[in-house]
Amino acid sequence: MNKKRSAISPIREDNYPEWYQEVIKAAELAEHAVVRGCMVIKPYGYALWENIVSYLDKSFKARGVQNAYFPMFIPVSHLEREAEHVEGFATETAVVTHRRLKKNGDRLEPSSPLEEALVIRPTSEMVIGDCFKKWIESYRDLPLKINQWANVVRMEMRPRLFLRTSEFLWQEGHTAHSSKEEAQAEAKEMLDLYAKFMEKELAIPIFRGEKSEAERFPGAVTTYTFEAMMQDGKALQGGTSHFMGTNFARAIGIEYTNGAGAKTFAETTSWGVSTRLIGAMIMVHSDDDGLILPPRVAPYQIVFNPFSLDEAVLNYIEEWKSRLKGFRIHVDKSGMCGSKWKWIKKGVPIRVDIGMRDIESGKFNISIRSKHHEKYTFTQDEFVDQLGALLEKEQQDLYDRALAYREDKMVHVDNLDAFKKACKEKEHRFIFAPFAANKGLESEIKEKYGVTIRCYPEEMDFETKPCIFSGSNDSRIAIFAHSY
Amino acid sequence: MNKKRSAISPIREDNYPEWYQEVIKAAELAEHAVVRGCMVIKPYGYALWENIVSYLDKSFKARGVQNAYFPMFIPVSHLEREAEHVEGFATETAVVTHRRLKKNGDRLEPSSPLEEALVIRPTSEMVIGDCFKKWIESYRDLPLKINQWANVVRMEMRPRLFLRTSEFLWQEGHTAHSSKEEAQAEAKEMLDLYAKFMEKELAIPIFRGEKSEAERFPGAVTTYTFEAMMQDGKALQGGTSHFMGTNFARAIGIEYTNGAGAKTFAETTSWGVSTRLIGAMIMVHSDDDGLILPPRVAPYQIVFNPFSLDEAVLNYIEEWKSRLKGFRIHVDKSGMCGSKWKWIKKGVPIRVDIGMRDIESGKFNISIRSKHHEKYTFTQDEFVDQLGALLEKEQQDLYDRALAYREDKMVHVDNLDAFKKACKEKEHRFIFAPFAANKGLESEIKEKYGVTIRCYPEEMDFETKPCIFSGSNDSRIAIFAHSY
Repeated sequence: MNKKRSAISPIREDNYPEWYQEVIKAAELAEHAVVRGCMVIKPYGYALWENIVSYLDKSFKARGVQNAYFPMFIPVSHLEREAEHVEGFATETAVVTHRRLKKNGDRLEPSSPLEEALVIRPTSEMVIGDCFKKWIESYRDLPLKINQWANVVRMEMRPRLFLRTSEFLWQEGHTAHSSKEEAQAEAKEMLDLYAKFMEKELAIPIFRGEKSEAERFPGAVTTYTFEAMMQDGKALQGGTSHFMGTNFARAIGIEYTNGAGAKTFAETTSWGVSTRLIGAMIMVHSDDDGLILPPRVAPYQIVFNPFSLDEAVLNYIEEWKSRLKGFRIHVDKSGMCGSKWKWIKKGVPIRVDIGMRDIESGKFNISIRSKHHEKYTFTQDEFVDQLGALLEKEQQDLYDRALAYREDKMVHVDNLDAFKKACKEKEHRFIFAPFAANKGLESEIKEKYGVTIRCYPEEMDFETKPCIFSGSNDSRIAIFAHSY
Repeated sequence: MNKKRSAISPIREDNYPEWYQEVIKAAELAEHAVVRGCMVIKPYGYALWENIVSYLDKSFKARGVQNAYFPMFIPVSHLEREAEHVEGFATETAVVTHRRLKKNGDRLEPSSPLEEALVIRPTSEMVIGDCFKKWIESYRDLPLKINQWANVVRMEMRPRLFLRTSEFLWQEGHTAHSSKEEAQAEAKEMLDLYAKFMEKELAIPIFRGEKSEAERFPGAVTTYTFEAMMQDGKALQGGTSHFMGTNFARAIGIEYTNGAGAKTFAETTSWGVSTRLIGAMIMVHSDDDGLILPPRVAPYQIVFNPFSLDEAVLNYIEEWKSRLKGFRIHVDKSGMCGSKWKWIKKGVPIRVDIGMRDIESGKFNISIRSKHHEKYTFTQDEFVDQLGALLEKEQQDLYDRALAYREDKMVHVDNLDAFKKACKEKEHRFIFAPFAANKGLESEIKEKYGVTIRCYPEEMDFETKPCIFSGSNDSRIAIFAHSY
């Protein structure tokens, strides 16, 4: 079989990481900034993020979460209090040491050193915790549910757009509760919310579950996670939701007076997702001709692509655009030839090519992005009737395709030899294996085989077998995979 | 006449700056952060900001502006290219010099110095300019209209919540055009957009006009501004819109190929407003009992305040809440006595106090925030019919009251003695005086009299008299005022 020519070079099977960068470039989603490690999110990529934000923000608010904004600077001494966190990620961070630039000839140099150095937030965990401490007095103030949309910084010397950059955008939710059960349920329900978002909006099948001891957030009692498989078989963690018990409240001092008048530590949670989700979406759906976007989050769901800029054609399109309410529609008025490929590379779910002949015949020629080599012809009535259903079908098709891909790359093993073999495969896989909790062993496995435990998956019915490493019967099924 | 007891202490006439801080505290809008110079925007204050963002963002998009996101770090060498900007504000800025913290006993200290220090954006003018340079090739790429919602930093040692903090939130729009007229019109239309927002949404009367030479943005051909009078008679600049001509494009190198194939510098604009608008709104409308919010931006337009938490009362309220569609309604279920004052201090436009007696009588007792010592009683039908109109009236009343206040504090002078006298008045004023452009004189006036030129107001019909300082006939009416 002949290979079709592809719009993206290299193609996935030749060089997956390079293909990823080229898809982003061709779709004009983002680019590397002049400043090392940072990215510019271009309008098309940012519109995608706005759709993600809009959905999640509404969902959070429906749960009684309130947004607020906290300063991005953290005094270094505040990090010293929370050693465990610092081990986690606060070490690779931007440190502000001066508050002025002064001229030295033609050059500018730092001047006015700060009394105490400031770190730019890698997370606002501690800053928000300090506010909780101040804001919470009695059980009447609970639950307190706060979310922040903000930029955070983790200095990164080997950046990859959306996946790993020094600065990125995210949301972090923090809640405090009077009961353990309520806090645990909150962390779990946030996982549900994210999972629904991933599956229904981003069309990404995920495994939900708990993190293992080694992968758990510092200080968390339970870290819930959702993990998706990329088209190279590697796992990507979409986000996490942590139940902290009273660990965090004890470290920071978040106490309230309970109904009986006694001082009590609050039970807390935190949960977040970031612009990384865009990276996941790109890697799960796109093909060798570029980006493919799920209709529900696509900035444009439909693009009208006129063959000419004749007034008759443009008027016809505008008329149809105003008739099709409730869809996000873009009209390409650039008058550039070859713009068909532009929209394929930008992953717009439905493209309608229109010329005078189509107007005369009263037909619509449409192309659906995930199967763009086929053309469909509709009468005007059919078009109006079926447009919504076509978008829904494309949404579902993308999910189903990703699910089939993933199912094909899952392997269950019940012995070490099978595990070793699976780890070595050229195309990576999700390896399901019984494992008995052992933090030391986890790092050993990572070092030896390159895979980590992505999660102990929930709601799956497995036969319980002994741990393939230790033989212990106190085992659970864990998903091992190479990961981003 | 006896002074009424007030909920805020001190009252405006005793200590205006202190009153301002207390209003913010009582309304739970924001608080000073642990980090010097920064603020925490609390949920109620952030909800206000979200309403501001939502309105402006829609308005920008309706004009074809696209949002994007740019890195917050600027290499110091980039600032060196643009000396004029650095003089403006880039000197008081946060400088990142290290990219890691390392442990030294129990302490953490900066380590891994960066090869080149980074500045946290005081504005993204240059970062966005660099992208424009890359993104714009031909006239077909113009106009390019980009906006960013982001945090920016200008190190501030004497912070005032919302008015002046080291970190604040803002939007900055940047556009590039092929014709001077189009760019100038863009800058002007953005001023119109902001002006409409100030007057219609925030109920703040403003003067719109051009900045004088001394107050103009570095590199701008024209800086448009809108200036509002606070309740101490001082001026506050609400925002600015700059027409840069080709000055900025020349400095950065933003060129495009025009229709004839020649390389041409683009004509650019930039425009922005910040969380400072919240400060303006507080200072213009609030009274000695606390915050007063214009209904159009208030997080809650109506609060139901039950006298008891009886199920019958709460059910009655919920029923009415679901019946009153299209309003932002809050139900106080705290069961705290004295919550009436909480809502007065939070500036909710309409408060409905409800007890069993009101349910039985079928009446609503309402209180309108700006005249909260009066009570109004409505039948249920009247309430439903008139609620929208009541909110609209409150919106208009706030505007009218602010306008009357301002009119009362304006003075026109045509000679230096009258000017000097006006500058010395205890309660500040807006002083209208003929002035002939002279940058040196402006700084002299500022030093001598404490006032600056806020703007040359537009669309006002004044008799042209000679400059009160120089006697020159080449004069325009300028507004002089003490300012924030």
